[in-house]
Amino acid sequence: MNIDIQKVCILGAGTLGTRVALQAALSGFQVRIYDLSEELLERSKQTMQKLLGALRKEGRFTEIEDEVLWSRLLFTTDPATAVKDADLINESVTEDVGIKQEVWKRFGALAPEKTLFTTNTSYLLPSMFAEHSGRPERFCALHFHDVFTARVVDIMPHPGTDPGLIAPLERFGEALEQVPVLVKKENSGYLFNTMLLALIGAAGKLLTKEVASVEDIDKSWMVNFHMPQGPFGILDAIGLDTAYHVTKARKDTASQQFAALLKTYVDAGKLGKKSGEGFYRYK
Amino acid sequence: MNIDIQKVCILGAGTLGTRVALQAALSGFQVRIYDLSEELLERSKQTMQKLLGALRKEGRFTEIEDEVLWSRLLFTTDPATAVKDADLINESVTEDVGIKQEVWKRFGALAPEKTLFTTNTSYLLPSMFAEHSGRPERFCALHFHDVFTARVVDIMPHPGTDPGLIAPLERFGEALEQVPVLVKKENSGYLFNTMLLALIGAAGKLLTKEVASVEDIDKSWMVNFHMPQGPFGILDAIGLDTAYHVTKARKDTASQQFAALLKTYVDAGKLGKKSGEGFYRYK
Ligand SMILES: NC(=O)c1ccc[n+]([C@@H]2O[C@H](COP(=O)([O-])OP(=O)(O)OC[C@H]3O[C@@H](n4cnc5c(N)ncnc54)[C@H](O)[C@@H]3O)[C@@H](O)[C@H]2O)c1
Ligand SMILES: NC(=O)c1ccc[n+]([C@@H]2O[C@H](COP(=O)([O-])OP(=O)(O)OC[C@H]3O[C@@H](n4cnc5c(N)ncnc54)[C@H](O)[C@@H]3O)[C@@H](O)[C@H]2O)c1
Repeated sequence: MNIDIQKVCILGAGTLGTRVALQAALSGFQVRIYDLSEELLERSKQTMQKLLGALRKEGRFTEIEDEVLWSRLLFTTDPATAVKDADLINESVTEDVGIKQEVWKRFGALAPEKTLFTTNTSYLLPSMFAEHSGRPERFCALHFHDVFTARVVDIMPHPGTDPGLIAPLERFGEALEQVPVLVKKENSGYLFNTMLLALIGAAGKLLTKEVASVEDIDKSWMVNFHMPQGPFGILDAIGLDTAYHVTKARKDTASQQFAALLKTYVDAGKLGKKSGEGFYRYK
Repeated sequence: MNIDIQKVCILGAGTLGTRVALQAALSGFQVRIYDLSEELLERSKQTMQKLLGALRKEGRFTEIEDEVLWSRLLFTTDPATAVKDADLINESVTEDVGIKQEVWKRFGALAPEKTLFTTNTSYLLPSMFAEHSGRPERFCALHFHDVFTARVVDIMPHPGTDPGLIAPLERFGEALEQVPVLVKKENSGYLFNTMLLALIGAAGKLLTKEVASVEDIDKSWMVNFHMPQGPFGILDAIGLDTAYHVTKARKDTASQQFAALLKTYVDAGKLGKKSGEGFYRYK
């Protein structure tokens, strides 16, 4: 397939959309980023400025001139402007199947014929809204992690995806300084989250069965693997509210028991790092 | 409890016993190490010399004089000599419940009254041979990992262990430069192996379900966590024969399917790093 990606449309200017848009602009793409209000777009721009400052402190992207960078970014609340001439849409709207179906119905109808459709969903499957886009064969998951530190991008087709999309998406991922991995069959959680959830599930079970303390479980992992965090430290970073929802959705007894424990933290306002306390305290 | 550990008896001079004995001697303890033949003891001594050379190349333990170190180590095939005046036995014989029961029957009868009994079993439980020692209340798991790089020691009492043993065992672990963690209830695999097996199980399932390749599954883990190995690289280091036996023992369908895949590697002589090939090739 002769696919040349130069112009990118990002749907959703939240945590992830903001990061993907910034990296795409840093990588030289023309980027249009869409969200529901000017206020949300303004916040996204401010987040980009902060991110950029932090990255440059690490010596990254220092060669790119501000003027050039910002000229590659267009913030808009107008759907037609957002998709105008787009080679690829990467959708990062709220993780809700109804919202994603609506968004794809709308943007699938608006987008030029050439546009590739990609979604960043974390736990839903592309087949749940591919048809809504009107072009399921040009639809594929292209799932980033945190873009700047965890630089993996999952490429996950659904059964109706044209296999010719995979190679251009791999090249696009590499252009965005990511390591592309191919998820050959639809799998909720792709590769990394599937493995991380297994690790966290085992740690949660050790805790709810009172086999060991939070600290000792984390220490086992950290000291053996020379890692800066163990499973409960990782959960604090993810956020215990998110962890609760994901764990609650798993129907086995051990997950339900761990979800019940997570709920006591959430109910007490202990959401992890972002609230200053979770399994650990933070200043 | 007034427990003063100075003299240590190591049963089994294989991979792990050799390492624990060396670290104990490096930490200033008087160490007697026992195995079934002079040849096995000679091999253990040679392994210690190699280990020591490698550690000193890293700048570790350079301040300890050879003469002093070796004067702390006694290699013996005589059970009575091995346990003479021992404050603690740490058993590292073959991972077989029958062998461990025999060993503990014999050494439990021979040991002085003051001796603490500890086992390094990886997947068996201390309660399976505590009674055989004749002193279950003085019996506890004290489980090392690789001693020099993965420096965690699990302290895992069985239901009949005197709780007064835990604090002295923690101090002993710290004296051996380990991070002690308390496993409050018997749990096969302690903390780390329980979590590692969950991770490996999830990776194995992704592979047998043909969701992704070995390389892509490993990349997801390594790139996201900035780790030098992913689950299949870790398995190659553990050895695919060991991995096969551990996986085969788990009765769920996914483990059985992964065990069947591991068997094809083992049958082809691909045992991982030690044989030069496993999931990856090594020179
Ligand atoms: N946060 C992460 O680290 C992360 C990582 C990988 C994937 N994801 C996925 O990315 C998606 C977004 O996650 P997030 O964390 O950025 O969420 P977020 O809540 O920070 O952002 C979602 C954004 O979507 C916008 N939105 C909602 N409805 C919309 C609509 N109809 N049209 C356009 N925009 C709309 C919201 O206003 C919001 O700005 C989810 O599918 C999530 O699973 C997130
Ligand atoms: N290898 C590791 O990394 C590791 C890590 C943690 C725990 N462990 C545990 O340590 C124990 C030993 O493992 P290993 O890998 O060192 O095995 P190994 O096969 O290298 O060594 C076992 C030793 O026990 C000796 N032995 C057998 N019967 C004996 C007897 N009756 N009396 C005295 N010695 C006897 C053998 O001759 C052999 O030298 C196992 O329980 C294992 O689960 C091993």
